[in-house]
Amino acid sequence: MICYSFAAARDVSGHMIRHQIQRRAVGSKDIHIKIAYSGICHSDIHTVRGEWGPQQYPLCVGHEIIGKIVAIGSDVDDWKVGDNAGVGCFTDSCRNCQECKDGDENYCTGSGTVFTYGHKCSEAFQPGGYTHGGYSSDIVVDAKYAVRVADNLFCAGGAPLLCAGITCYSPFTHFGLKRGMKLGVVGLGGLGHMAVKIAAAMGAEVTVVSRSADKRDQALALGATNFVLSTDEKQMTAAAKSLHMIYDSIAFPHDVVQMLNLLKTSGTLIMVAGIPQSMNVSAFNILPRRLSIVGSCIGGIKPTQEMLDFCSQHNILADVEVIPATPEAVDAAYERAIRADVKFRFVIDTAATLTA
Amino acid sequence: MICYSFAAARDVSGHMIRHQIQRRAVGSKDIHIKIAYSGICHSDIHTVRGEWGPQQYPLCVGHEIIGKIVAIGSDVDDWKVGDNAGVGCFTDSCRNCQECKDGDENYCTGSGTVFTYGHKCSEAFQPGGYTHGGYSSDIVVDAKYAVRVADNLFCAGGAPLLCAGITCYSPFTHFGLKRGMKLGVVGLGGLGHMAVKIAAAMGAEVTVVSRSADKRDQALALGATNFVLSTDEKQMTAAAKSLHMIYDSIAFPHDVVQMLNLLKTSGTLIMVAGIPQSMNVSAFNILPRRLSIVGSCIGGIKPTQEMLDFCSQHNILADVEVIPATPEAVDAAYERAIRADVKFRFVIDTAATLTA
Repeated sequence: MICYSFAAARDVSGHMIRHQIQRRAVGSKDIHIKIAYSGICHSDIHTVRGEWGPQQYPLCVGHEIIGKIVAIGSDVDDWKVGDNAGVGCFTDSCRNCQECKDGDENYCTGSGTVFTYGHKCSEAFQPGGYTHGGYSSDIVVDAKYAVRVADNLFCAGGAPLLCAGITCYSPFTHFGLKRGMKLGVVGLGGLGHMAVKIAAAMGAEVTVVSRSADKRDQALALGATNFVLSTDEKQMTAAAKSLHMIYDSIAFPHDVVQMLNLLKTSGTLIMVAGIPQSMNVSAFNILPRRLSIVGSCIGGIKPTQEMLDFCSQHNILADVEVIPATPEAVDAAYERAIRADVKFRFVIDTAATLTA
Repeated sequence: MICYSFAAARDVSGHMIRHQIQRRAVGSKDIHIKIAYSGICHSDIHTVRGEWGPQQYPLCVGHEIIGKIVAIGSDVDDWKVGDNAGVGCFTDSCRNCQECKDGDENYCTGSGTVFTYGHKCSEAFQPGGYTHGGYSSDIVVDAKYAVRVADNLFCAGGAPLLCAGITCYSPFTHFGLKRGMKLGVVGLGGLGHMAVKIAAAMGAEVTVVSRSADKRDQALALGATNFVLSTDEKQMTAAAKSLHMIYDSIAFPHDVVQMLNLLKTSGTLIMVAGIPQSMNVSAFNILPRRLSIVGSCIGGIKPTQEMLDFCSQHNILADVEVIPATPEAVDAAYERAIRADVKFRFVIDTAATLTA
């Protein structure tokens, strides 16, 4: 099936062009989604710029996808045309390894998780042999790798849940965030602002830790009850040993030991940004107070559905700036995202642009 | 009460001398223990040599203590003269903080854990104002900070359970080691050899990871079912992603990322040696496979009692070399311990020496 990317990266510069892409024909187990909204995640930017390895261009990225089903395969009996559907960071996995059986397809150790874009795969899976993502008109995926999107999430603010939302929800549930616990959120960007909303809805008491004093009002508006300015030694000392868990979403090297100091005995620091530089943490930093440093990366299909149902129930959406589905608008959004000049996520309104 | 240290460190050289020490008189809540066995822990060596901060000399160390009760305070109704008793790494804590209430007195955040030796405290608590440990004839402690030692553990091999034993048992239970799980033990010394025995008794399948091929036979004899030579790239590759949990007891800087590679998805690396140098681990090392790096330090009174009961039930003792209670013997043992020339723990047979 021929479909249309309104913003495919031309080359490693990351500049966007209009480009025709091929999708596979709708197979018996597939659904065909007409894309309505597509979020812009910082991973998209890293990928198109070759920062996470070389890519094939033109490359269409995007893994926060919401749309409507326009066709279904003959063996698909749990979806129907007209249903809302979401696609996140991956579209297939081996289905046989322990991780897939456990619902952790994102950690597949069989043939490996097939990521939504830039992933080498068979021609049968994707004409051209590389997956293409959500900055496009349509997507065809196996029905088992799509999730249901309630009507109150079918809007621009719902799209970022597919990546940013699950990247918070999955470690919160896996590592045991519970009602009444004190959670620190470090870094108030696309991930951090979702973490505040989701954790507050889970009944946690949220403290935002930031080096920007002007984030205080935003933090409180999002549902945090406390704010700590990390550059203020007095505030950091007062907050020492006060948190059960910290969600650290800062995407560049920073002082991790300073964050460990904020944890209570037996506390957990969750790292979600794949920073390649050493954390500069020693065993001596974690041993005397039984601290844990853990990593987490998106989440499986079942927890993603759980997260969406939770967000629907609690009316949780991302705070977004909506842009049109044009290469120029995506280029401009990337420039601003790189400067962290966005509150808090850009979402492309594909439906409005392409049907205008 | 005047009592006798057969081996008190004279100064920062760590050389031992005979020395008279004062203990407090037996208070209404105290028990007076005649010491029978005292283990030699590497912490003792670090402490007397000033490697963990300056000390007051002469200093009597030792925190793996087993003996018989010879007197009890008027308010003590759950112990009687003649009972076996054990004393581990600490002898008091605030009793009011959340950690003390939770049975984690070793992580006390009130006035702080009072360590068995070298700890500054009141004259009332300890004449001289510093605690003295187990290389001595007698010790007086609050009955709530002593543990019961079954008859089958009342021997030299039982003493190391008070520190080495609990340093394994506590993280195994806290971080969820279960029957059938695959555990790696890195470093086969005093801690590592206890970890193999205790984990095997818990029903775990134990793999010892060592850079010394000659540890293989020892590992299998202790209860491990597998051995991986860490200097052999082929063996390390074959063992990749095979372990649910790793107990890393190496006491000097080493390649932690190499150990993380051995963990399955969602695996846990437990660090128990307080190495001050950076682990050189990045968020990128833990995030793509949801790995955890955790620290753990001894354990509370309740888990220590649980551990002793577990070891009694399974007839688990440390493998020890017994030495007499003389300064010369302790000096010689320290020299050998520093060269890691001991299988696997030195224990001082105080009762035999002092009653000879």
